[in-house]
Amino acid sequence: MNSKRSGEVAISSDAKGKAVERAPPPPPPPVVVTTKATKIRNIRGKKGLAIIDIVLRLGAGSAALAAAYIAGNTEQILPFFTQFFQFHAQYNDLPTFTFFVAANAVAVGYIAFSLPFSIVCIVRPHAIGPRLLLVFLDTVMVALVMSAAGASTAIVYLAHNGNLNSNWLAICTQYTDFCQALSGALVASFVAEVFFMLLVVNSTFALKRK
Amino acid sequence: MNSKRSGEVAISSDAKGKAVERAPPPPPPPVVVTTKATKIRNIRGKKGLAIIDIVLRLGAGSAALAAAYIAGNTEQILPFFTQFFQFHAQYNDLPTFTFFVAANAVAVGYIAFSLPFSIVCIVRPHAIGPRLLLVFLDTVMVALVMSAAGASTAIVYLAHNGNLNSNWLAICTQYTDFCQALSGALVASFVAEVFFMLLVVNSTFALKRK
Repeated sequence: MNSKRSGEVAISSDAKGKAVERAPPPPPPPVVVTTKATKIRNIRGKKGLAIIDIVLRLGAGSAALAAAYIAGNTEQILPFFTQFFQFHAQYNDLPTFTFFVAANAVAVGYIAFSLPFSIVCIVRPHAIGPRLLLVFLDTVMVALVMSAAGASTAIVYLAHNGNLNSNWLAICTQYTDFCQALSGALVASFVAEVFFMLLVVNSTFALKRK
Repeated sequence: MNSKRSGEVAISSDAKGKAVERAPPPPPPPVVVTTKATKIRNIRGKKGLAIIDIVLRLGAGSAALAAAYIAGNTEQILPFFTQFFQFHAQYNDLPTFTFFVAANAVAVGYIAFSLPFSIVCIVRPHAIGPRLLLVFLDTVMVALVMSAAGASTAIVYLAHNGNLNSNWLAICTQYTDFCQALSGALVASFVAEVFFMLLVVNSTFALKRK
């Protein structure tokens, strides 16, 4: 029995040897720890990007609101008038500015709609659905805000400089304040546009990180 | 010493028990096989998206090229003239169309520049660097092409309808062909814009897949 025991010992020592050989495997735990650490770092990175997202969103919303408000409240009444006509300029005298105000108002509404999704991205950094939805809609907003800003810039440029070839006169020579206010609204709109572009790039980075 | 040995046996049997407990880990190999299968599927998906990317890119390039070419070659000479003046309309009579042609030409140049990166994304579906660069530049192009298309639309609308409030007359009543050609160029430019937006969304999906 003793010999058996010693045999057992031999086997066991073998087993032990194997166990010792298998001892290195414990490294797996540290590997798991590092992946966990990477995951935690990634989650932190994603949360950081989600917070940047919400800040950019608020920036875009305020800039678009400013653009819509300034353009929508722009009017100028010239101090001279004829018997039948008073010289009065308002944003909706030019259809382009009606579009400008509408597009920026839509952008503000979209920001209000998208904020809850953006908050979901902070709470659940790995949620991909809301982020993809936001990237898609942000791209649409980049196009919408830029089309309004581009169109209005073309018209404001024309109002400032006129065009001799088509016999369109510069109306800004009379309506100075009106043109200045519209230029201010344009600047606000371009700021909103930059914010929307940063939103798309930021979301792309957030989707990249795993 | 024997007692020590028997003690050792006890320990070794313990160790053996632990070894048996550790035996289950072998399952990992099958897991690795499934991740390999998933990886292959993902690589195929990524390759598919990269091929869609190149197709969209070619579509955007041809549309932008058509827009630039049509607008750049648009001119009309009216069949009547005075002693000192011949009525002749060309795209660069309006600075907006100069910008329109330039922006679409830049878009065509960018497509030529981006094609090699797009091919890299087909060959190496997991390369993230070129894809991030493309998303960033595509977003810039969405904004650039849209600003040109928006500005030109505003001017073409004005040329078609005029604006009584600012005393700008509709020039399209005389320059019919000129206005029609420009409208065609605008349509081509909006098609290019849609392609660029799809490019951004497509790249986002490609970055999402892992």
